[in-house]
Amino acid sequence: MIAPFQMAAGPRVRFGRGEATFTGEEAKALGIKRPMVLTDPGVAASGSLDPIISGLQNSGLEYFLYNEVEADPSDESMTRAKEAYEANGCDGLIAAGGGSSIDTAKSAGVLIGNGGIIHDYFGFGNVPKPPPPIITVPTTAGTGSEVTCSAIVTDTARRVKAVMASPIMFARVAIVDPGLLAGLPGPIAAGTLMDTLTHAIESMGSPKANPWSRTLCLQAIAHIGKYARRFAAAPSDPESADPISISSTWAGHCFTNTGLGIVHSLSHPVGSYHHVHHGTSNAIFLPPVMLFNLQAVREDYARIAPLLQPPDETSQIDPADEAAPQAAIHSVRALVKDLGIPANLREAGVPGDAHFEIMAKDAAESPQVATNPVHATEEDMRALLHAAMDG
Amino acid sequence: MIAPFQMAAGPRVRFGRGEATFTGEEAKALGIKRPMVLTDPGVAASGSLDPIISGLQNSGLEYFLYNEVEADPSDESMTRAKEAYEANGCDGLIAAGGGSSIDTAKSAGVLIGNGGIIHDYFGFGNVPKPPPPIITVPTTAGTGSEVTCSAIVTDTARRVKAVMASPIMFARVAIVDPGLLAGLPGPIAAGTLMDTLTHAIESMGSPKANPWSRTLCLQAIAHIGKYARRFAAAPSDPESADPISISSTWAGHCFTNTGLGIVHSLSHPVGSYHHVHHGTSNAIFLPPVMLFNLQAVREDYARIAPLLQPPDETSQIDPADEAAPQAAIHSVRALVKDLGIPANLREAGVPGDAHFEIMAKDAAESPQVATNPVHATEEDMRALLHAAMDG
Repeated sequence: MIAPFQMAAGPRVRFGRGEATFTGEEAKALGIKRPMVLTDPGVAASGSLDPIISGLQNSGLEYFLYNEVEADPSDESMTRAKEAYEANGCDGLIAAGGGSSIDTAKSAGVLIGNGGIIHDYFGFGNVPKPPPPIITVPTTAGTGSEVTCSAIVTDTARRVKAVMASPIMFARVAIVDPGLLAGLPGPIAAGTLMDTLTHAIESMGSPKANPWSRTLCLQAIAHIGKYARRFAAAPSDPESADPISISSTWAGHCFTNTGLGIVHSLSHPVGSYHHVHHGTSNAIFLPPVMLFNLQAVREDYARIAPLLQPPDETSQIDPADEAAPQAAIHSVRALVKDLGIPANLREAGVPGDAHFEIMAKDAAESPQVATNPVHATEEDMRALLHAAMDG
Repeated sequence: MIAPFQMAAGPRVRFGRGEATFTGEEAKALGIKRPMVLTDPGVAASGSLDPIISGLQNSGLEYFLYNEVEADPSDESMTRAKEAYEANGCDGLIAAGGGSSIDTAKSAGVLIGNGGIIHDYFGFGNVPKPPPPIITVPTTAGTGSEVTCSAIVTDTARRVKAVMASPIMFARVAIVDPGLLAGLPGPIAAGTLMDTLTHAIESMGSPKANPWSRTLCLQAIAHIGKYARRFAAAPSDPESADPISISSTWAGHCFTNTGLGIVHSLSHPVGSYHHVHHGTSNAIFLPPVMLFNLQAVREDYARIAPLLQPPDETSQIDPADEAAPQAAIHSVRALVKDLGIPANLREAGVPGDAHFEIMAKDAAESPQVATNPVHATEEDMRALLHAAMDG
């Protein structure tokens, strides 16, 4: 028997090299006449936007470029994005960037549709009116936000990353063009793909996981096992970038339906207090959290162990082997190492444990605790922070 | 490199035993006050609707029961359904039945939203205005129509099954409750599951197939290989009914994005001229069409061969084996036989080849020809009809 579950559909996904040039065509099909393109200064300078911009120009659309998206975007930045949209007479949103740009577009969309301040809509299902039409065009393979109905917003006063989610926030179309990944700096490619792996593993472990989400997560994990090292070394290589790219979208599609786990509970305060890149902190927390969760998800880990086996290991892991679940954790550690990601928080620039008390408290109060396979207390979170500090 | 593709999302899927009782709640959430429930006399008499009806009653919704859905529903029947909807002051559609009921709901919805006659909207993308909100609640596991954006309508004058498809036709919610399959007569359970298998195999062979659709199709085929015989013998058994049920939905989700192949091109005229059950005629055509397509999709067939291996075969087929592709065809034949489905058209009640000329012509002109892995001419269709007649 299969336990009841729901899979919300989300946006139509348009995938493939060169598809970003159809952004203008898609915007026009949605009735958009003057889109606001949201991105961050780094992406704007990188040339990644060129296919999107030329697509808009070819469609004769006069767009407004808003390139002030912040990393770990704040509550106030959402109001600024909304004001820029209104001041420039826009009628649709095109998010072109990583998770920060896409989450800013969704959040600004909520404010455009509903007024007020972004705190009014934190939590789940608290957005009454729809945003204007949103098109998402990710320039990284990691966030999955292009197909999720949530956004992460830094609540400046409380210094926490707040979650806001509602099916009303889904984009209308997600254009996933792996060609846009070509210029990704190696560390960003590595960090973001570890974000995807974390999404897939945490989604599988959720009590809301189901055969649909598990099928796609397993395939995403298989792609990462096979292509992660090649992709991080050369994000312009289609043979590895394309499967990594679609896996990121799959993991997003799955976790927006199943929820995530406490890697994210822990990563968010590390982002708020120490501005460690989200994918990097996920990579650091993933092995100790997998160890913490092991008892509850042995079978899952046994199943993913052969998929994540490092390429230099010659003997194939058998999921039936008693040591298979632990082998999955070992393989994640090996991948983090091979990708050159810091092995612990100290290496990632966290100077000490001065904020660990409040960070553990914030983690224990995060919504992802409810969808972690094992219940984690504040004390557990503190122990995991310390394990990740020098682990 | 992954070739460009699109995956349209379709309705939110709510899956699980007992979920049909939430039909009223879902209707109310969509703002429906007086739904028309569409079904056929057989389903209405079977008791399968009880959980749906009690769900509507518990939500205080006054529904209108329209139980005049035809098998292989005709163009005129769509107008009748629309008139019944309007005469009874309804404001939403609940399709509760097999493919005929769901396709009637979608088609009536098109007429309610747009006026005219259903022929005005045949083809792809020809529906200007949206239908009223539609909820689909399948009582068979086969059609996949609960999550597709198409409907098959018998064009009475031309005696062909016309296809009408547009993303605007997607239902809002699909409630897939495998508990509703419990009372399925064995031959219907067998025929409908062969419809699912055909959808999955034809979707995989389409030039529009992609890693997303292929991942779900492979898992659907694996479920069918594992559970089909048990399910047909006892559709009330949750261990087999649940995976067969979700597989049917997956196959629909995939083929509405990729298109189908010439099994459907051939099945439709057999339905129009001889009223053979759609799943049964699919089962009959699938092996000869697989043989016809073999050269183009050897690798796919090799991959599905181990998944479809009959349970009594002891040695595991290796996809790398030279004979693996042919083994997949052999396994489909063995499944058809084990399910007690007629092995050929004659056994299924087609008295002779009197209509084969026009049937071959209709098949060759059908839209599925474009998404078959091998181009099929009118002469090919005639040969396949004869192969299926006594094969």
